[in-house]
Amino acid sequence: MVRKMIPAMAACLCSLGAVAQSDDSTTIRKIADEVLSNGKAYENLRVLCKQIGPRLSGSPQAQKAVEATARMLKEAGADTVYLQPCMVPHWVRGEKETGYIQLAGGAKHALKLCALGNSEGTGPKGISAGVVEVGSFAELDQLGSAVVKGKIVFLNFKMNPNYIATFRAYGETGPARWMGPSKAAKYGAIGVMIRSLASNPDDFPHTGVMQYNDSFPKIPAVAISTNDADWLSRELKKKMLLTAYFRNTSKMLADAPSFNVVGEIRGSELPNEIITVGGHLDSWDLAEGAQDDGAGCMQSIEVLRALKAAGIRPKRTIRAVMFMNEENGGRGGEKYLELAKQKNEQHVFALESDAGGFTPRGFGLEMKADQVTKIQQWKDLFYPYGVYDIAPGGSGSDIEPLKGAGAALAGLRPDSQRYFDIHHAASDVFENVSRRELHMGALSMAALIYLVDKYGL
Amino acid sequence: MVRKMIPAMAACLCSLGAVAQSDDSTTIRKIADEVLSNGKAYENLRVLCKQIGPRLSGSPQAQKAVEATARMLKEAGADTVYLQPCMVPHWVRGEKETGYIQLAGGAKHALKLCALGNSEGTGPKGISAGVVEVGSFAELDQLGSAVVKGKIVFLNFKMNPNYIATFRAYGETGPARWMGPSKAAKYGAIGVMIRSLASNPDDFPHTGVMQYNDSFPKIPAVAISTNDADWLSRELKKKMLLTAYFRNTSKMLADAPSFNVVGEIRGSELPNEIITVGGHLDSWDLAEGAQDDGAGCMQSIEVLRALKAAGIRPKRTIRAVMFMNEENGGRGGEKYLELAKQKNEQHVFALESDAGGFTPRGFGLEMKADQVTKIQQWKDLFYPYGVYDIAPGGSGSDIEPLKGAGAALAGLRPDSQRYFDIHHAASDVFENVSRRELHMGALSMAALIYLVDKYGL
Repeated sequence: MVRKMIPAMAACLCSLGAVAQSDDSTTIRKIADEVLSNGKAYENLRVLCKQIGPRLSGSPQAQKAVEATARMLKEAGADTVYLQPCMVPHWVRGEKETGYIQLAGGAKHALKLCALGNSEGTGPKGISAGVVEVGSFAELDQLGSAVVKGKIVFLNFKMNPNYIATFRAYGETGPARWMGPSKAAKYGAIGVMIRSLASNPDDFPHTGVMQYNDSFPKIPAVAISTNDADWLSRELKKKMLLTAYFRNTSKMLADAPSFNVVGEIRGSELPNEIITVGGHLDSWDLAEGAQDDGAGCMQSIEVLRALKAAGIRPKRTIRAVMFMNEENGGRGGEKYLELAKQKNEQHVFALESDAGGFTPRGFGLEMKADQVTKIQQWKDLFYPYGVYDIAPGGSGSDIEPLKGAGAALAGLRPDSQRYFDIHHAASDVFENVSRRELHMGALSMAALIYLVDKYGL
Repeated sequence: MVRKMIPAMAACLCSLGAVAQSDDSTTIRKIADEVLSNGKAYENLRVLCKQIGPRLSGSPQAQKAVEATARMLKEAGADTVYLQPCMVPHWVRGEKETGYIQLAGGAKHALKLCALGNSEGTGPKGISAGVVEVGSFAELDQLGSAVVKGKIVFLNFKMNPNYIATFRAYGETGPARWMGPSKAAKYGAIGVMIRSLASNPDDFPHTGVMQYNDSFPKIPAVAISTNDADWLSRELKKKMLLTAYFRNTSKMLADAPSFNVVGEIRGSELPNEIITVGGHLDSWDLAEGAQDDGAGCMQSIEVLRALKAAGIRPKRTIRAVMFMNEENGGRGGEKYLELAKQKNEQHVFALESDAGGFTPRGFGLEMKADQVTKIQQWKDLFYPYGVYDIAPGGSGSDIEPLKGAGAALAGLRPDSQRYFDIHHAASDVFENVSRRELHMGALSMAALIYLVDKYGL
């Protein structure tokens, strides 16, 4: 495109709802201009990704990220910044994993693989066994011990490419990872290889959490790349029986001390009513956790900064929270609720960004019907920013415990097409974040926080 | 995001308009599944970008791209594939450009720069002169010959970051590039440096077309990176006068022969009524032209493939057209109209994709009001695919001449946040295209073509 312009401006919708006033439109424009012209989220994310990097719960980098974001919150203009101590699971990957499929004539096909989070290790010598492929748990149940015992089970569950919302495909296929190892162990499998939960063919293994069922042996579990999974499936169709080897030395250590990081702007009229905006500060250890969830953390800090810079003095207390340990435990979210209850805090609303810093399209609302209606009355205020999909739906796993404190919840809904290209893989790096997209998300979040603060819920 | 799912599905809208039937919904779902499961656009784009690469009009690579896309169209199932010869401007960049700012004490600050398309060269020794910065044409006019004569004018026009539609900012700032050189030459400038038309600070010079006004001397013109532009502006504020040097050996050669590439599926009932879908095959010479506009070409081929693979037999003739020379002449689009008129063809509709292969958000409609209304009645059919912004607006510069044949026009509106990060720069490469996003655009285009074919306009 060059010679002539596509005047791609969205049509201006001029009939605002009863509640949403035209001065709100002006204020939101001011917030948006502030974020788009002076936003710090992108440069803060660069620091988090490039100066700190991967920050799995319990790691030294997670601690550095705590310190760095406390500093960022102060710079953003929070009047109070503090840490909430919490104990977190401390899993370590150990040495770089290795694995292969034994081919005829002694040759080996090396696999691109990584241990799943929380997985036990194979022991120093690794494990070797025949491979049994299954495409569903029903298939696994059908094969049972007779076929599975002593084998390595290859859970080749494919994300459905036809779903427009990639999270739907992830939700359907995810159990392969979360529950697959114990389901295979039930039938006597000695290890599990899962097809990475990725939406495209690629060469990256995508890690992520799994949970053992204590009723069965804790067998080691790895993810292989989607390209390797397709290759292996083809080979198994030709050869019927193949032998796999893999080795990982990952293990769970004792719980480690860590923190949520909180920065607030105290409310001018209703300081005891709390509005939370957050993301999770921990990330997987294979990459920089740029989209998951450095983006959400930096956007949350930007919400405080932009409100302050735009001269908005919130009535209620606005808190940006960097939750620790979303990836493999959720302890930060639980601790946040625990402390809220201890202090008898009044939580009116919480917003999480944990679906990536891609261009926003809407918000998922997890709240009472009348609250949904109230927020939907503001729709026209968001439309000029490309945010049109404001509807009941999920919020975010860090804030979900806050239901227990009566909070209405919401989650930013960015475009989901690229998320599972890089999710939990070595490719989740700063370079795969767009500055404008990240800032568009931040301004949408700030606008929603502004409206909820002004009108309540 | 990992532990729990965000059920991010858009709410299902069930009240379809009068015209849009539920079997259309089923057919469009079939088209979408075909593209998302078996789409070839991404792998075809890899061939175009990685095996052929940059393909400026008149270059050997442009010719290779003609041959490759003719082959792709056949593979996609076109029943007729042919070339439309047309003469194109043949501009060559020459040797790699060099340039710097002379600093105190003899040191030099090297500039990241490139000649603008269609620019004349500086001669082998380059040019050197004092730099005069202007932020607008009004400022240039105010300074006039008294200040500008003999100088290199630095047109530091900034894209407005606050516009949500980045094309709007491009449209406003673009004249710096298109007309800046002649406007400066009018006052006796000997050369022009423009700030790259890019939406973010970066180190890439972004090229693009300029047009000389024959009334003034044809002075050489280059773009410098936005980071260099910001640096230079700061230095000029400190020093007032700085000397710049640059050298480019670009030149315009005689017109060269080239082609549009056309593939069609002949209509079963109304073969004389033609529906065109296209993009432009030429690209700038600095990069692979992946988003601009390899994406639009590959999507257009995919439209034919998907309709055929989904078992749809169009009533009207559907033509995928790879237009040549959009970037620096527009000759392919003009030739297409010329031949249409010669053959007395009946063009009912044309759709262009030339705003990148990013996730689609809508269509711009350049047609009569009753035609706009008709297409807007199909809105609910597109909403489940995230395509909600269907409104009057620009279409595409290759199909614009077809207005002269009475065609209704439309342009795909992808998300525009990342486009001007890479537009016309060395970073417009295959790696910056998302497979799912590209295919989402293709399926949206195929759905619109399907509906227009079925119901007419």
